[in-house]
Amino acid sequence: MGTARLRVGVIGLGRMGQIHARHLAELPQAELVVVGSRRPAVAERLARELGVEWADSYEAVLERRDLDAVVIATATCEHVSHVIHAAERGRAIFCEKPIALTLEDTDRALDAVRRAGVPLMVGFMRRFDPPYARAKELIEAGAIGRPVMYKGVNRDPRWPAHEDDDPAVSGGFFVDMGVHDYDLAWWLMDSPIVRVHAIGGALVYPQLATVGDVDNGLVNVEFASGAVGNIDVSRNARYGYDIRTEILGDEGALWIGTIQQTPLLVLDRTGVRHDVYPWFPERFATAFRNEMLAFVTGVLADKPLSPSGEDSRRALAVALAVKRSYTEGRPVPVGGAQEAST
Amino acid sequence: MGTARLRVGVIGLGRMGQIHARHLAELPQAELVVVGSRRPAVAERLARELGVEWADSYEAVLERRDLDAVVIATATCEHVSHVIHAAERGRAIFCEKPIALTLEDTDRALDAVRRAGVPLMVGFMRRFDPPYARAKELIEAGAIGRPVMYKGVNRDPRWPAHEDDDPAVSGGFFVDMGVHDYDLAWWLMDSPIVRVHAIGGALVYPQLATVGDVDNGLVNVEFASGAVGNIDVSRNARYGYDIRTEILGDEGALWIGTIQQTPLLVLDRTGVRHDVYPWFPERFATAFRNEMLAFVTGVLADKPLSPSGEDSRRALAVALAVKRSYTEGRPVPVGGAQEAST
Amino acid sequence: MGTARLRVGVIGLGRMGQIHARHLAELPQAELVVVGSRRPAVAERLARELGVEWADSYEAVLERRDLDAVVIATATCEHVSHVIHAAERGRAIFCEKPIALTLEDTDRALDAVRRAGVPLMVGFMRRFDPPYARAKELIEAGAIGRPVMYKGVNRDPRWPAHEDDDPAVSGGFFVDMGVHDYDLAWWLMDSPIVRVHAIGGALVYPQLATVGDVDNGLVNVEFASGAVGNIDVSRNARYGYDIRTEILGDEGALWIGTIQQTPLLVLDRTGVRHDVYPWFPERFATAFRNEMLAFVTGVLADKPLSPSGEDSRRALAVALAVKRSYTEGRPVPVGGAQEAST
Amino acid sequence: MGTARLRVGVIGLGRMGQIHARHLAELPQAELVVVGSRRPAVAERLARELGVEWADSYEAVLERRDLDAVVIATATCEHVSHVIHAAERGRAIFCEKPIALTLEDTDRALDAVRRAGVPLMVGFMRRFDPPYARAKELIEAGAIGRPVMYKGVNRDPRWPAHEDDDPAVSGGFFVDMGVHDYDLAWWLMDSPIVRVHAIGGALVYPQLATVGDVDNGLVNVEFASGAVGNIDVSRNARYGYDIRTEILGDEGALWIGTIQQTPLLVLDRTGVRHDVYPWFPERFATAFRNEMLAFVTGVLADKPLSPSGEDSRRALAVALAVKRSYTEGRPVPVGGAQEAST
Repeated sequence: MGTARLRVGVIGLGRMGQIHARHLAELPQAELVVVGSRRPAVAERLARELGVEWADSYEAVLERRDLDAVVIATATCEHVSHVIHAAERGRAIFCEKPIALTLEDTDRALDAVRRAGVPLMVGFMRRFDPPYARAKELIEAGAIGRPVMYKGVNRDPRWPAHEDDDPAVSGGFFVDMGVHDYDLAWWLMDSPIVRVHAIGGALVYPQLATVGDVDNGLVNVEFASGAVGNIDVSRNARYGYDIRTEILGDEGALWIGTIQQTPLLVLDRTGVRHDVYPWFPERFATAFRNEMLAFVTGVLADKPLSPSGEDSRRALAVALAVKRSYTEGRPVPVGGAQEAST
Repeated sequence: MGTARLRVGVIGLGRMGQIHARHLAELPQAELVVVGSRRPAVAERLARELGVEWADSYEAVLERRDLDAVVIATATCEHVSHVIHAAERGRAIFCEKPIALTLEDTDRALDAVRRAGVPLMVGFMRRFDPPYARAKELIEAGAIGRPVMYKGVNRDPRWPAHEDDDPAVSGGFFVDMGVHDYDLAWWLMDSPIVRVHAIGGALVYPQLATVGDVDNGLVNVEFASGAVGNIDVSRNARYGYDIRTEILGDEGALWIGTIQQTPLLVLDRTGVRHDVYPWFPERFATAFRNEMLAFVTGVLADKPLSPSGEDSRRALAVALAVKRSYTEGRPVPVGGAQEAST
Repeated sequence: MGTARLRVGVIGLGRMGQIHARHLAELPQAELVVVGSRRPAVAERLARELGVEWADSYEAVLERRDLDAVVIATATCEHVSHVIHAAERGRAIFCEKPIALTLEDTDRALDAVRRAGVPLMVGFMRRFDPPYARAKELIEAGAIGRPVMYKGVNRDPRWPAHEDDDPAVSGGFFVDMGVHDYDLAWWLMDSPIVRVHAIGGALVYPQLATVGDVDNGLVNVEFASGAVGNIDVSRNARYGYDIRTEILGDEGALWIGTIQQTPLLVLDRTGVRHDVYPWFPERFATAFRNEMLAFVTGVLADKPLSPSGEDSRRALAVALAVKRSYTEGRPVPVGGAQEAST
Repeated sequence: MGTARLRVGVIGLGRMGQIHARHLAELPQAELVVVGSRRPAVAERLARELGVEWADSYEAVLERRDLDAVVIATATCEHVSHVIHAAERGRAIFCEKPIALTLEDTDRALDAVRRAGVPLMVGFMRRFDPPYARAKELIEAGAIGRPVMYKGVNRDPRWPAHEDDDPAVSGGFFVDMGVHDYDLAWWLMDSPIVRVHAIGGALVYPQLATVGDVDNGLVNVEFASGAVGNIDVSRNARYGYDIRTEILGDEGALWIGTIQQTPLLVLDRTGVRHDVYPWFPERFATAFRNEMLAFVTGVLADKPLSPSGEDSRRALAVALAVKRSYTEGRPVPVGGAQEAST
């Protein structure tokens, strides 16, 4: 090929790491060089399938000198050290969301990235989902006037949704699930979230209460612009994976998302039925691909990456305020490092 | 006809009074006898059209001895005196919602009704809308398990929606519009609303701020059962009148309502379009008819009427807490007479 | 009431007669005077419910001197004699479709009506269904340019759909069901149907083959304008009663109709479901009411009635050509009295 | 990679050839080696983008000894010679539909393939569209009982849809567009189409009449099983690219396809709008990818390919009967080589 391809390594081969590796293997603009996991069998199997090298440690990948970029899909609690490691080696970095579960840890990672001067992009893939991307364009083009209300739906069909779904590790549902929507809300409304009020409970899975987590929650959010919003999270959308957003402006509205996966209706004596998205890999398949494409082409073109590390930090600040609001039963302002992570 | 028909008079011939009068004129179980308005021209025109008598004062109707029942669709601020008057004359009463704007006034009316031993029904017509009525049946039949989340959408296309739309008289948007959904939420979730948190603002019509009213609002609600909910109200759904509800249970969900009025798509070079409900008379046409039918047949059969005066009182108590929460910027418990109306 | 009400009698109290009688009882512009049936118990019960008189013979109603109009909902084979009888008594006539099963019989009835100079309207209620009525307006306003293709769907959920569903009496499915759509097609495309080609078979209910009838059929139709169309009929839409139409113009299209009755989705582990129209009384409830309203107000205002007797005649001519096409396995021109009924 | 990848060349770099080349470049199971076009600039640009070799003649690709397979996306009139050439070189062949415009030419190509013993797959990509693929599974699993009616919609938004849209070369609309649906109908109903009746006209683009082509057409089809069907084709679906199918069985139905591309509604004072698929590359993006995947993995696994050359031949036989039926104004049986291509 005439133009250079971005040489990329992927570390962490759980669900997300495998998704990213597969998309990188397909992108003409990228060359997936190596995949790394602490589980050698997993790494070897995927490497064989994709025709790339493999490593049985993250460090072995991070230390390779022949990589332009690294995709970090390890456990959230390890993100910070891997981001710092990759930054120190001068790699462009794609890191899964959130970078960390505290603002202090996030700042440590972002400082290292800043010092190293490397590009960093964070995995809020919903921004790359076609209807959400189009919604952003429409809002910026004035299609609905000035946005005044944000309504977000975020529902998993069950809990645990996967075997590693540990609230203690993930930061809890208001963080792990909610952070996607806090990012969307801030981005689409183009205004900082300044205050939140959360209610909810462990209404379906009582054992979640023992770790302070919820299975159903509702968050009222106030934007600096004066606009208002509400975000729901649930772990018991028995019908499927359900991510939707409505944005109301003073001159129109946008309704984004659907639960129907395939344009096929089955009609019989028992009724009319369609399928639904079972979970996020199916719902956001195109988004994940577009996200990797944006990362790869952005780095190759030396353009600013988005969503940025700062975007991740601000979404986390909202998440921490939400958790505190839920715990304390009162509205909580969204703070910076000092306030929000105390 | 073999069976007796309920002889009814209607007072107040604004939009709602005319709707009720027309339905009563059509119901085989009822005999619309007289319509009364302080505007004689209005009363005479409607009476002529429907082939009934008319009066140019409310009292003239309330004092007639040949009526079994009275439908009160006068201004909200006059409901109490008309309810008391009708109760003292022993009439079955249908009163538009809300009975009053304070709990004290509501209690005065309900006391009079109780003393007189007359039946009273209040105009929360949404309960009679086929999809809402069916939803109630499905929930009671266990179709979605235990309800854990309530989401309500209440959006008018514009403000003022009609010429008499005066926040000072109506109680404001959190009361006038919201009260329908507080009633629905309590009824469908079958659990008292115990605490609310409201945010919002006069974001589109700044003049509303001068009377303390809003055009966009979001209310987090907590139910005694532990379930949670959120209710939005907006005055700028430019696309049409938009009333929808989602209820999430631990074993399923219900999505109620649609904005599309007619099953007709128009497709051309500019896109695909359908019509929408312009406003509540169109959206709830069937509900209004079913509501009158329930009132008339309920009185004839001497069955308890629902929604009751107490239903109206509790919805008002929620509304008052919502207003205070909005004003004070904090969650507010839903009180009884003492607390909530202080 | 200031204005006179149309005094109407209804004969034939099967499903359609009862529907019409109930609507007449509700319309302020009409006074239902009497209902007649050869089944006295049926007539008496309905009369008692609606508070009107009853008769145990059709003739007793037709002979009354105090009626302005008669609604004829008797068996198809009796329509002609009842239309003639009513015409001779000078009554305005509403007759269920089709007037007769041959063009000769139809002409005898239409001749009597013409001689008597009485108004006649025929029961193609689909024209009064809001989406179809709106479609007609949109086409006339040029919303889709020049119509070039008509697609009609006509599907019953089962056979027999009712106990009296006898192909020998009804004329068969291509007549009894199809005639509604031949009328719609001619009316909406505003062009005569000049040739038809029908295929089909008794594919689900083989016993229908013994009487030359079908349970599934498809009719290609050619319009005088050059436009083309296709109409399907089926007796095995297990999912519900399904009436839809698409019209394609050179500048746009209309899609008319839906199978969903109530705007309510039920979502659970087994999928997403909505209800469907079970059969025509539910699907066309509004149409039947609007149809009676048009008849009553049309007669009162002395305006031409539509659909007319000629409309019924031409739809029958199409139906007869369809039957012949199916039998002979070739395209058949749509004829007048001579040709088509030979 | 452990397993061998299929080495493929693509000839013909119009719209379809480019689509196939891009998918092959992404598939881990394939190695796109070379792309060939008579337009060197086109070939070079695509080759550079995908990082593969290029050739400025089809023969240069067909003669290469290092290819396992060839994708033929040249002009329809050249398919036969290219298929024969590729077969004689022993390559696995993917050929765009239809193989030829006469049964004799088709047979010459199929004979060469048979003699050479090479695998051949034909580009009826709709079979690989997720809802159509799922529909086939559901029918085979008995979800709708025995299929009795097929309804197909095939509508382009305009004509010419692309600059090379020449009816004389493509075989006309009943062939070029219709052939996809004849294949779907035969495949999904699992029964031969035995007779067709076509109507239509050049109603929107009169110039098409001069070459005997149509812009709107309707085809009644009869299956050997007794089932019946209808297929529409139109060149003036101004609203977008519209491909849908309904299949009615004796125990249920399937509705396949949608015109809405993105799950995003825009709602404002002018109404409610969604986007639509502009044309086939967008509508069948996933299908084209799945199709190439099926070809590549099928050849690698030495499994029978489908749709086969025989499938292409039978769809052409239907298309030829349709054309003759339209010309002669009568139902025409679907013949074999002798009858249908006379």
